[in-house]
Amino acid sequence: MTEKFVVTPWEVSGDIDYDKLVKEFGVTSIDESLLNKINKVTGEIHFMLRRGIFFAHRDLDFILKEYDKGNKFYLYTGRGPSENLHLGHLLPMVFTKYLQEKFKVKCYIQLTDDEKFLFKQGLTLEQANKMAYENALDIIALGFDPKLTKIIVDTDYAKTLYRHAIRVAKHITFSTVKAVFGFENNNNIGQIFYTSVQAVPAFLESVFQGKNVPCLIPYGIDQDPHFRIARDVLPKLGYLKPAAIENKLLPGLLEGGKMSASIPNSAIFTTDSPKEVERKIKNAFSGGKDTLEEHRKHGGNPDIDIAFQYLKFFFEPDDAKLKKIYNDYKSGKLLSGELKQICIDKINKFLAEHQKKREQAKSKLHEFILKD
Amino acid sequence: MTEKFVVTPWEVSGDIDYDKLVKEFGVTSIDESLLNKINKVTGEIHFMLRRGIFFAHRDLDFILKEYDKGNKFYLYTGRGPSENLHLGHLLPMVFTKYLQEKFKVKCYIQLTDDEKFLFKQGLTLEQANKMAYENALDIIALGFDPKLTKIIVDTDYAKTLYRHAIRVAKHITFSTVKAVFGFENNNNIGQIFYTSVQAVPAFLESVFQGKNVPCLIPYGIDQDPHFRIARDVLPKLGYLKPAAIENKLLPGLLEGGKMSASIPNSAIFTTDSPKEVERKIKNAFSGGKDTLEEHRKHGGNPDIDIAFQYLKFFFEPDDAKLKKIYNDYKSGKLLSGELKQICIDKINKFLAEHQKKREQAKSKLHEFILKD
Repeated sequence: MTEKFVVTPWEVSGDIDYDKLVKEFGVTSIDESLLNKINKVTGEIHFMLRRGIFFAHRDLDFILKEYDKGNKFYLYTGRGPSENLHLGHLLPMVFTKYLQEKFKVKCYIQLTDDEKFLFKQGLTLEQANKMAYENALDIIALGFDPKLTKIIVDTDYAKTLYRHAIRVAKHITFSTVKAVFGFENNNNIGQIFYTSVQAVPAFLESVFQGKNVPCLIPYGIDQDPHFRIARDVLPKLGYLKPAAIENKLLPGLLEGGKMSASIPNSAIFTTDSPKEVERKIKNAFSGGKDTLEEHRKHGGNPDIDIAFQYLKFFFEPDDAKLKKIYNDYKSGKLLSGELKQICIDKINKFLAEHQKKREQAKSKLHEFILKD
Repeated sequence: MTEKFVVTPWEVSGDIDYDKLVKEFGVTSIDESLLNKINKVTGEIHFMLRRGIFFAHRDLDFILKEYDKGNKFYLYTGRGPSENLHLGHLLPMVFTKYLQEKFKVKCYIQLTDDEKFLFKQGLTLEQANKMAYENALDIIALGFDPKLTKIIVDTDYAKTLYRHAIRVAKHITFSTVKAVFGFENNNNIGQIFYTSVQAVPAFLESVFQGKNVPCLIPYGIDQDPHFRIARDVLPKLGYLKPAAIENKLLPGLLEGGKMSASIPNSAIFTTDSPKEVERKIKNAFSGGKDTLEEHRKHGGNPDIDIAFQYLKFFFEPDDAKLKKIYNDYKSGKLLSGELKQICIDKINKFLAEHQKKREQAKSKLHEFILKD
């Protein structure tokens, strides 16, 4: 059976075949040799790299080589603020913050209230803009360095963004966005224009410094179409192609793996209470057997178990501990309820700390938001 | 013989059939009854209205009725700053300034450096932006009231414009701009988005006042497609349809009537010297006969004579004087050289004064430019 899957910046569904995506999108898999190069530069390999969660890239080797020569890159990532953040959104942010810490580099984070307004029926611009500032609290809570990090809320930084977006737009035809995003004649003209706004932070630091600064963009693979266009256009404006490091998408809690902010039970939000987390993980899709006896006898399947996936993607950085959980679950020694409880405890410990920092972030917003 | 003509915001060519345009664009001719209403409110009828230079409108009767009830409208006009202004560009500005004086109303003037950059191959954004400020000097020189007039340079007011433009854009599909502007798949996505930026000043005063303020837009008929879209979308955002008063385009100096800033001899620029004006008018297309004898005998044709058209459109507001020139030329009493000399003297007198005021405008720019 071949399951159909869809991965675009605005729709992710089905059982994603990442090998197929690598070919379709024209990205490069992160292999042993590249991991070794990273290890050589940073002295370690983050668990999200070791485990293939960040699995693909564009020009990451170039970024490392330049860094090694003393030519620092900067980071750029972002988020479309239609709802509160869930853990899937947080994943690339956590990794980006790690990269900033490790390399001591600048970082731009774009919150695309314009995009969400243009693509979501019924969402007002005021709602999207308000949500951008809510999302900013979560991002700041992760511990980004206020001296090195600037958060861009699109409509509040539009004077700068628009000026540069039209420079990008002049090199993109409707044919291109039609082919890359699957747009039709009934797409609105704001949607059609939008990708040029998302391209701007990929060269903004070069604008500010008046010289080319390499840019590395960590993002969920669903955003790749935007940066494919950006990589095509930016050299025409005299800038470097932005490099990229791309993550697999954190699976949703329910069967089929779909995670959507519009299906609250499919995701854990950063604002969820411990009780909500418990309820959601207990209801999450399990790789266990139907009865206790069967589970003890045949064991469970950690590869499809959502609680295990959350530990692997996010909450158990220790490979040895993860391996033990994997083996115990597979052998039937660890029950589904027990595995879920490990996951619940880890998530709730993380969220308790996160929510405290999120509160503290309210007084720090002004240090991060870029204004023009 | 039927001559083909084209009238779009980006191309005007051929012998324009204005009656046909009225039907095609769906505007309403300005008739005696409307002129009488204007006369009743203002106590006079401007020569550009009397002579059918401002010849068509949308909802002008509504604007007058509201004004009569004490509900003031505001004015909005604009210009794409790719080159220095020529007299054709100045014409709607002169009339707009007259309306401001007569009705004592606010006025927004939009200088669309983004548009010119997006539509003109080889023009940089810096060049277009610089030209916008050059054009602003000409506009200020016409005597607009600094307390009531705000000049918008698009890329320097983009924070406000973009925020509202995307609200407009959400209601316009590619199909619409394809049908209205004749765009194709190879138009760039900035061009496709642009009309939503031109729509913003048509409701900006309502945004600022927090209530609906009627808007009247004087413009050359070639800009009508933009405002047709604006009139369709604005009510969906809760604003009034903007009203319009539209002028015929000042003919170019050369045969065929084409006037283009890119053909310097086809137009008189506000920065031209008296010598240049003299040379250009002397070379302009004439309605006179080939020889002196023939002209004296059969007379000239003022209806196709460019010098006469400039007097009629712009430089001889006195109907009796214009009529005498018309008759004398038609009878052969007035020679082509003499008619041209009248025109040269009038233009040079106007430009001498204009250029002086243009210099003085340099110190007043800051009073007019809207910043965000």
